[in-house]
Amino acid sequence: MSHGEHPAVDDADRTGVWLVGARGNVATMSIVGARAIAQGATDTTGMVTERDTVSNLELPPVEGFVFGGHDIEPESLVAQAERQRDRNGVPDADTLEAVRDDLAAIDERIEVGTAVNCGAAVSEDSEQLAEDLSIRDVVDQIRDDYETFRDSHDLERLVVVNVASTEPELAESDRYDTRDALERAIDEDDRDLPASVLYAYAAISSGHPFVNFTPSTANTLGGVRELAAETEVPHMGRDAKTGETLVKSALAPMFAGRNLRVMSWEGHNILGNKDGLVLEDEANAAGKLASKGDVLDSILPDIGHNRVRIDYTPSLADWKTAWDYIHFEGFLETEMKMQFTWEGSDSALAAPLVLDLVRLISHADEHGDGGLQPQLASFFKAPLGVDEHDFSRQLDRLYDYAEEHR
Amino acid sequence: MSHGEHPAVDDADRTGVWLVGARGNVATMSIVGARAIAQGATDTTGMVTERDTVSNLELPPVEGFVFGGHDIEPESLVAQAERQRDRNGVPDADTLEAVRDDLAAIDERIEVGTAVNCGAAVSEDSEQLAEDLSIRDVVDQIRDDYETFRDSHDLERLVVVNVASTEPELAESDRYDTRDALERAIDEDDRDLPASVLYAYAAISSGHPFVNFTPSTANTLGGVRELAAETEVPHMGRDAKTGETLVKSALAPMFAGRNLRVMSWEGHNILGNKDGLVLEDEANAAGKLASKGDVLDSILPDIGHNRVRIDYTPSLADWKTAWDYIHFEGFLETEMKMQFTWEGSDSALAAPLVLDLVRLISHADEHGDGGLQPQLASFFKAPLGVDEHDFSRQLDRLYDYAEEHR
Amino acid sequence: MSHGEHPAVDDADRTGVWLVGARGNVATMSIVGARAIAQGATDTTGMVTERDTVSNLELPPVEGFVFGGHDIEPESLVAQAERQRDRNGVPDADTLEAVRDDLAAIDERIEVGTAVNCGAAVSEDSEQLAEDLSIRDVVDQIRDDYETFRDSHDLERLVVVNVASTEPELAESDRYDTRDALERAIDEDDRDLPASVLYAYAAISSGHPFVNFTPSTANTLGGVRELAAETEVPHMGRDAKTGETLVKSALAPMFAGRNLRVMSWEGHNILGNKDGLVLEDEANAAGKLASKGDVLDSILPDIGHNRVRIDYTPSLADWKTAWDYIHFEGFLETEMKMQFTWEGSDSALAAPLVLDLVRLISHADEHGDGGLQPQLASFFKAPLGVDEHDFSRQLDRLYDYAEEHR
Amino acid sequence: MSHGEHPAVDDADRTGVWLVGARGNVATMSIVGARAIAQGATDTTGMVTERDTVSNLELPPVEGFVFGGHDIEPESLVAQAERQRDRNGVPDADTLEAVRDDLAAIDERIEVGTAVNCGAAVSEDSEQLAEDLSIRDVVDQIRDDYETFRDSHDLERLVVVNVASTEPELAESDRYDTRDALERAIDEDDRDLPASVLYAYAAISSGHPFVNFTPSTANTLGGVRELAAETEVPHMGRDAKTGETLVKSALAPMFAGRNLRVMSWEGHNILGNKDGLVLEDEANAAGKLASKGDVLDSILPDIGHNRVRIDYTPSLADWKTAWDYIHFEGFLETEMKMQFTWEGSDSALAAPLVLDLVRLISHADEHGDGGLQPQLASFFKAPLGVDEHDFSRQLDRLYDYAEEHR
Repeated sequence: MSHGEHPAVDDADRTGVWLVGARGNVATMSIVGARAIAQGATDTTGMVTERDTVSNLELPPVEGFVFGGHDIEPESLVAQAERQRDRNGVPDADTLEAVRDDLAAIDERIEVGTAVNCGAAVSEDSEQLAEDLSIRDVVDQIRDDYETFRDSHDLERLVVVNVASTEPELAESDRYDTRDALERAIDEDDRDLPASVLYAYAAISSGHPFVNFTPSTANTLGGVRELAAETEVPHMGRDAKTGETLVKSALAPMFAGRNLRVMSWEGHNILGNKDGLVLEDEANAAGKLASKGDVLDSILPDIGHNRVRIDYTPSLADWKTAWDYIHFEGFLETEMKMQFTWEGSDSALAAPLVLDLVRLISHADEHGDGGLQPQLASFFKAPLGVDEHDFSRQLDRLYDYAEEHR
Repeated sequence: MSHGEHPAVDDADRTGVWLVGARGNVATMSIVGARAIAQGATDTTGMVTERDTVSNLELPPVEGFVFGGHDIEPESLVAQAERQRDRNGVPDADTLEAVRDDLAAIDERIEVGTAVNCGAAVSEDSEQLAEDLSIRDVVDQIRDDYETFRDSHDLERLVVVNVASTEPELAESDRYDTRDALERAIDEDDRDLPASVLYAYAAISSGHPFVNFTPSTANTLGGVRELAAETEVPHMGRDAKTGETLVKSALAPMFAGRNLRVMSWEGHNILGNKDGLVLEDEANAAGKLASKGDVLDSILPDIGHNRVRIDYTPSLADWKTAWDYIHFEGFLETEMKMQFTWEGSDSALAAPLVLDLVRLISHADEHGDGGLQPQLASFFKAPLGVDEHDFSRQLDRLYDYAEEHR
Repeated sequence: MSHGEHPAVDDADRTGVWLVGARGNVATMSIVGARAIAQGATDTTGMVTERDTVSNLELPPVEGFVFGGHDIEPESLVAQAERQRDRNGVPDADTLEAVRDDLAAIDERIEVGTAVNCGAAVSEDSEQLAEDLSIRDVVDQIRDDYETFRDSHDLERLVVVNVASTEPELAESDRYDTRDALERAIDEDDRDLPASVLYAYAAISSGHPFVNFTPSTANTLGGVRELAAETEVPHMGRDAKTGETLVKSALAPMFAGRNLRVMSWEGHNILGNKDGLVLEDEANAAGKLASKGDVLDSILPDIGHNRVRIDYTPSLADWKTAWDYIHFEGFLETEMKMQFTWEGSDSALAAPLVLDLVRLISHADEHGDGGLQPQLASFFKAPLGVDEHDFSRQLDRLYDYAEEHR
Repeated sequence: MSHGEHPAVDDADRTGVWLVGARGNVATMSIVGARAIAQGATDTTGMVTERDTVSNLELPPVEGFVFGGHDIEPESLVAQAERQRDRNGVPDADTLEAVRDDLAAIDERIEVGTAVNCGAAVSEDSEQLAEDLSIRDVVDQIRDDYETFRDSHDLERLVVVNVASTEPELAESDRYDTRDALERAIDEDDRDLPASVLYAYAAISSGHPFVNFTPSTANTLGGVRELAAETEVPHMGRDAKTGETLVKSALAPMFAGRNLRVMSWEGHNILGNKDGLVLEDEANAAGKLASKGDVLDSILPDIGHNRVRIDYTPSLADWKTAWDYIHFEGFLETEMKMQFTWEGSDSALAAPLVLDLVRLISHADEHGDGGLQPQLASFFKAPLGVDEHDFSRQLDRLYDYAEEHR
């Protein structure tokens, strides 16, 4: 992608987007989508920032996004996009052709990453940074990659987004609760630190806004949060709310608001992409299931039974299908039921949110709003620093923010 | 129901509740529920006014409700409740026994009503006021019934609630758009005026707060609204939101908020109670289908296709079952689907809302808030004077009201 | 399609397939599929004749089918296939390219047809035989078209299949209950005779096996059946069983076999293709709804309530989606429920059955089995001359036939 | 239950029914149902033997069943039935009152049983035979209980039915593949033998017909089968087909018969009775999941992915709810979907089959048909000695048997 191709986007509008897990499903679809928008090959359906109040903000244009990233997966972005076209039908053939050259160019900018402590399920057939590097060296290497990218593309701002596969939960994470403890652990080559934390630390310590799109530890660690607060770097997460949990966060407030008592809420997710394969590994699933379950526990504190299952069903590919069964009690002890089935393309639901988050956190950065960004709560299953899980109310925070910054 | 049985409720707490359609499903279940609460035979699950913020308001206690009403149905309240127990399992046998004597006592206070212009489907085997009465005489008779009830029970306040079967839509209703036009029509014995309007006019012109729980015309008529505004009598409606439409008003904002384009939303309702039978008659259904459909059109202005069906399925009795199929488009033109099935006991969902509305409109009356009551929008499919259909935001209005009146 | 391309198929294997409604969804998909099989571009999944016992029969190869037909729709087969690719994703782009030239060649062989008495919904923007032709002339023209096609392609056998849009039901059809009555009506230019009867009469009176894939009258008329029986021409129908009704015919026997009492079976079909649009017209729907409903009435004679709805939902295109809700009673008067949702591509389900039926009726013709073909009952919602609707038992008839002719 | 109460049933018609697990859900409901039929308090809906062809057989009347059994659960039958009434609504209050005295009388005839090797999940709070008894002593005790019951009630025939909770699978069961090996193991006090085998061995070695309604080992063991074959005692099993698997065995043949390729079939069962709690224990679940999965593997040998889950959802009590999602491929590689939800009262579905099986195996015994009973295959998920899993074809075997014995 030569800059000259897009005369409408001037230099001030060029925003760097560094994707950790840059050849994964979500990253691929985000890049395909952004470039398809730039090429006029698709519209912005699915992007929150293109909707009424939010669209009044002065946000960096998607057309000006310059993509780079880390991955341990050697297969090219083009090959990834082709596989998604063949298995999921998204993107369709015409869209892929429209952006094929852009993908090939962006692929050149993806660097080999680290997968330290990412769990057994993600590390087969992958390349990664030499294992004899110290943790501090890995951090430095990541920071170097960020800076080199920024300099060579002459970017005003670089936003780092973690869209890599979910890691196993970090045990005893409170040992890294302060910036000091975290930095000491890095210096002492503490091999328990997972990759997501290194990427987050590297970003925030260099002043780059950071978004954790996954359930991995990353910027949820106390030490990283303290660093971001002290240095006033905007960051947000955790675990993008795209499918079944999104529906839960819209529906559960209805039961609460009508004082209906939910006795059981069973959620059964089946999907066939790499995410499904990774989550089938129980250690990796623990983090995800926790944040999915928390939404209901928060909105419905008296819920009787709340279980979420994620199973790997290969033929579904990226089509995440969920069946939820809700058994509730109303007036006069009447037992009633609601059930729903959700059939969504996981990556197509996630990708526009990546673009939205880059635009919105850039806006915060531009306006000097550092630390956590509660106005972005609606995007996450476990929004950092926000207790509100009701989707409508979370959205209202975003609309209020948009009104204020008009 | 002797007053002496409930020493905790003193005279000041006694609120008259006049139900138009007092032997119908919703009325029966409301009375059973209120008396079961008073007898300690059930709890208040399903009542919005028993939930956090709202419960902070000083509201008249359900235990102090004194019920009366009109109906054209001669079969007794006890017989109605027994049929519901047998067909729907609600109320259960123990609860019915606990309130059987109360029901018999209340049944004595139900007067014969009018069913003028209520449609063919509702008028078989029914009694009603003599057909040779003039419209003005009917209105006077209704007002008399209200006053007699109020006086004989020494009630501080009387709230009239329309829970009768849905009438056919009134054609050219704008001819009654002013108080003058309406009163002239009554005086001129205009036989087009439907029963619901007469009940509403009789209530409001006598200063009684009025709630229209159904889709019928009643207080939606311009002339009635003008009267209520001028005389500062609180009233609200139209068409209680209990099942499928409630879910729609919670779910549709999720699609809007995420900028997902709903191409088709099909709603198919099946039910087997009298309401189902009445709605199977197309003329009577028109009003209901309109207010059900409006919710989506309002929240999703770009919706492609929006249809609601109501069918009569006798074996389901009061169990209203709805299947909704939502076909939507997301990022990169990806077509996705959501479907849900809702299985609710219609009367058990509606009854607690009747009690809530009586309590809340009494509160408004007590505080001198006349005219429409927008804080009650969350209870209705077509809230009078309120354009907001998002359930969470409608609820926020109620919570704000509760905060203000704390 | 030059014959020389398929050296494996010798002249004796070439079967003419004349499709009435040759540019409709089902016809287009049948032709695309047959040619894709011939080109090695797809496999035979979905074809009953390629499965175990049935595949032991000596059947004409799909690769040797020579297609022609009638239609009143002027848009070309290629354009039809492109629209289906774009709206439904079936056929996919690669398959369409593989058969594009074949489609164009076949399109040349499609003649203008008649749409007399086909109902308002099907006749817009269409061409048809001159309206001043007498009924006898129309029949003669159709027969001419059949013969010309057969001669010019030097075909051993010609099978005529009606896959045109559903006609309105023919009133008082028993007036044509005998061959004499029917032929007299033709001679007397009886304008009540619908197009499907003319096509069927023309085929059978010329000795061509005939299959009625639709609910239209065609060969179900007494006079046509008598003719076929007397002249020993094999024919079968009515209304191919492809989706919801197929499921019903597999599931309903389970309730019967376990002596479970079905109180209500609600079926709600939504679809967005031309078939949906035609069926939305109530007159045209009547025939279809009758044959769909009959399956349950036959298998479950004590069923309490049995309704089928078909609605037009444009965005679904060819994806016929059905929700069925089954309310049944078991032991100790226990009320239970089953519900299912079926999401199938109507044409992709129907097309392989067209190919199967051509092969199987050709086999019957080759072996001198004239008149109705009960071994084909499993293919139809209303199998002519067969009372059995249990899908497993219908299939057993086909397997028995295959065993006998082994 | 005094015999004199039922003058219509003479002595020759009295059949002993010995239930292993006599106070469990299925046993309780079977007894309630049989006695309710005898008392005229319910009808025979749900009983296969009351349906057309089968009802032509001369079968022992349910009214003449004399119940007894073993259990390790000390709580009375009446208490069990009351709990089912309260939690599930089945039986209803009137039916329970009609049979309350009968239940109390039958409860007196339930003996303490053994739970050796029944798994951790079933043995809490239970009584059982002294643990210091040798295996041979336990077998003798069980045989004694059978004989004492038979003698004291002067029964012509005693049928033993295992309806106890599912045991863990028996490891290396082929070590008991012959009668000799099994009897040697009993004599050598082999503590690996599970309770179900002891009950089955005791029954068959005493000449009592035996039915294994559960997935437990029991009469599936080679040694027991050899014994039954040699002594010509009729027996059958394994694992009654009542809910989701029943539906699978009716639906899967449809996909097979139409040559549709099932890529994935996900089955998710949730239930809240003791069976659910036991199956949540993975060791106990293994046997059940295997027989549930086998049905599909047998009917659809090319199935791509086949998983069954059973989860414990307390609020559902006995209402077993299953969601099945079927992803299949049709013609032209078109991917399609079907999903269903089944909501059945597990015990109400199972109970009539217990009564059917007692009647039918008594018939076999009366007619000297020993060993396995393939005509009963339709009742079981894993019918012993029968490879056919298609429900319709299994039923045909029963109808053929009924025709032959007419």
